[in-house]
Amino acid sequence: MKKINTSPISGTQELLPEIQAVFDKLKTGVSEKYHAHGFLNIETPILERTEILLAKAGGDTEKQIYKVAKTNETMEDSTEALRFDHTVPLARYIVEHESDLSFPFKVCQMGENFRGERAQRGRFREFYQCDVDVNERENLPLFYDADVISTLLDAFSSFELKTPVLARISNRKILKGILSGLNLQEKSTDIYSIIDHSEKVPAEKTEAALDEIGVSSGDKEKLLAFIELNGEASKVVDGIKALGVENEILSEGLSELTEVMEMLTSDGYTNIVADMKIVRGLDYYTGTVFEFVLPEHKDIGSVCGGGRYENLAEYFTDQKFPGVGGSIGLNRLFFVLREKKLINLESEKPLDVAVVPISDKENQYAMTVASEMREKGSSATVVAGGKKLGDKMKYASKIAKSAIVIGDAEVASKKYRIKEFE
Amino acid sequence: MKKINTSPISGTQELLPEIQAVFDKLKTGVSEKYHAHGFLNIETPILERTEILLAKAGGDTEKQIYKVAKTNETMEDSTEALRFDHTVPLARYIVEHESDLSFPFKVCQMGENFRGERAQRGRFREFYQCDVDVNERENLPLFYDADVISTLLDAFSSFELKTPVLARISNRKILKGILSGLNLQEKSTDIYSIIDHSEKVPAEKTEAALDEIGVSSGDKEKLLAFIELNGEASKVVDGIKALGVENEILSEGLSELTEVMEMLTSDGYTNIVADMKIVRGLDYYTGTVFEFVLPEHKDIGSVCGGGRYENLAEYFTDQKFPGVGGSIGLNRLFFVLREKKLINLESEKPLDVAVVPISDKENQYAMTVASEMREKGSSATVVAGGKKLGDKMKYASKIAKSAIVIGDAEVASKKYRIKEFE
Repeated sequence: MKKINTSPISGTQELLPEIQAVFDKLKTGVSEKYHAHGFLNIETPILERTEILLAKAGGDTEKQIYKVAKTNETMEDSTEALRFDHTVPLARYIVEHESDLSFPFKVCQMGENFRGERAQRGRFREFYQCDVDVNERENLPLFYDADVISTLLDAFSSFELKTPVLARISNRKILKGILSGLNLQEKSTDIYSIIDHSEKVPAEKTEAALDEIGVSSGDKEKLLAFIELNGEASKVVDGIKALGVENEILSEGLSELTEVMEMLTSDGYTNIVADMKIVRGLDYYTGTVFEFVLPEHKDIGSVCGGGRYENLAEYFTDQKFPGVGGSIGLNRLFFVLREKKLINLESEKPLDVAVVPISDKENQYAMTVASEMREKGSSATVVAGGKKLGDKMKYASKIAKSAIVIGDAEVASKKYRIKEFE
Repeated sequence: MKKINTSPISGTQELLPEIQAVFDKLKTGVSEKYHAHGFLNIETPILERTEILLAKAGGDTEKQIYKVAKTNETMEDSTEALRFDHTVPLARYIVEHESDLSFPFKVCQMGENFRGERAQRGRFREFYQCDVDVNERENLPLFYDADVISTLLDAFSSFELKTPVLARISNRKILKGILSGLNLQEKSTDIYSIIDHSEKVPAEKTEAALDEIGVSSGDKEKLLAFIELNGEASKVVDGIKALGVENEILSEGLSELTEVMEMLTSDGYTNIVADMKIVRGLDYYTGTVFEFVLPEHKDIGSVCGGGRYENLAEYFTDQKFPGVGGSIGLNRLFFVLREKKLINLESEKPLDVAVVPISDKENQYAMTVASEMREKGSSATVVAGGKKLGDKMKYASKIAKSAIVIGDAEVASKKYRIKEFE
């Protein structure tokens, strides 16, 4: 008989232990791959000064920030809030600790972020985000763009999904060059947004949207042809040549894209594709941009994204910290993987051995046996208590791969048998 | 030139990567020991309904709760808050998911909790707490009291501290029996609190405090003798007999204490002691209570605590969920261990191998070499970019145990040499 609503609040993740174990395996997989690639872990606090968060956040993000206050304070007293991503705290961290860090600074961050989004199926207000970033004081070699993408691809490999993952890659300089070549720079914000949405709407809508902002019919055709370009880098380069646009920023973008793709290909990655539909938001990214998708499940959309930025910390310092990074949102990913059964949810039984004393008289020796098992590297628990042996064995079979029953004879002989469960 | 204050807010932990690595090792140690003992991991959300948190919190805790609200909401709109411990969410979780759990439910929780305490050196407002609990629907065998204490002792062993750890153990039934035998039940709240503080104040103050609440001089001497009792269980039992108090609850407490101590001793734990000064707060605990200390550093106080409780979820349900649990507050512990140099802070270099291409021409092959290293189970990064080889090697020696330099010759021969750093 409940007295109070005990469900977890909407937009948060709460799992049964056996499903939590599957989620924890994803976490471990990501963390191991990040470390294998040389990213050092840091943890910034969840609580941040609100002015730090507001320095960058604008528009929707600002409205979604959770401010905190003690119960006897008013909201006006509040000067602290919950971080909404790992990027702003990273910028603060690098500015604050710069003199103690080695650059290029390869860093990973794994932890909860918070956004007051409207509650919606599969949308989380508290979400576990796994970020990698490489930052330099001045020039960061293009190599690290490939490094970040390969790290994230390896993280996805560790999930052993039942469906392929594809990294779609572009470079913001290409689109910038195209728009500059077509003299459409002034409309670039609108065009970025139209391309960004083009996948989610029918082709006519994209056309109509370009008409609406006054793109000429010739330019429109070029843009529509442009966003259909995807495949190997060379194919995209040829396709863009056919559009008849040429300028320095475009060439730079194409050559960067080609180089990043080549590095990944020659390192053995086959699940990558150049794709001119990839834009990634509006202002932040300046070079390589990428999104991972599950091509057999297009409705899921992007499951990982990132790119290169020129200026991580512009709100906190005059120094530039160019970088490249990417992020996996683990709660949403896990939610869709479970829903579509794209991941093995049969978690292994959590324990190696359950030691089952027949009565409380054998508890003591059972404890010793469990310790012996642990010393050998197994996990072990003792199933104590006055229940029937049958009940204890049933419980043991739920939580452990094997059992050791301890009765008088075992206590006397100090010998026992391990029974494997099916 | 900073534009804004970029320090982390007070009462939070923010570490440089090499110190973070030491902290992460503590976390891993705790988590491994908890799992080795059969505790299943769960993660409840950080955001909780405020009414859930307020159902149990009273007094100071209530004032310390952080409520959250979006920037366009007022505090009166707020219905959500940050969890302040793992116990309340665990109670909610067990009530919510009871039918899907196997009992006894051995569970661990590791994550951040939040309390709006006054900022003070070594006091955290955002703190990482590592809890273990065993809960049953009705009767929970005494065995699990020893199980929890041994698990926590093993967690501390994994820290490899430069100073011993001691588990001080008592049982609330003993003090309850003593007070009932002396007809002091009515003053029990005051007496609990006086004993709880007795270690932090001179003996005269404790005496004066007992005088003040009207404890007769004969009873006072008994209480003062009582709280000085510590050592082996049998010694404490004898000492209590000498006080001339006898009743059922006292006998029960002494026999429980003796049994828990015996189980631990016979399992090989030598760093345990019965200690009548251990009370642990006021109302919650009903049987075994314990605190871990570093006896060579008494000023640090308790570094871990817990005990047995009869009723985990009374605020949420009419059902009883008796349990026993304990908790390590990892930020405060790490803070004092660092301050007193009781832990090895020389973290290993984070990476096994840094692959250093002499120029960008060798980036590609360097990437392949790094991948080969990773396939062999090493962690590896590529030090790319146009810096001088000497600078790159200096950087490599900071982050990695060894380096592989890749030049023309290595690219041509596909052979390379691993250079170990000192």
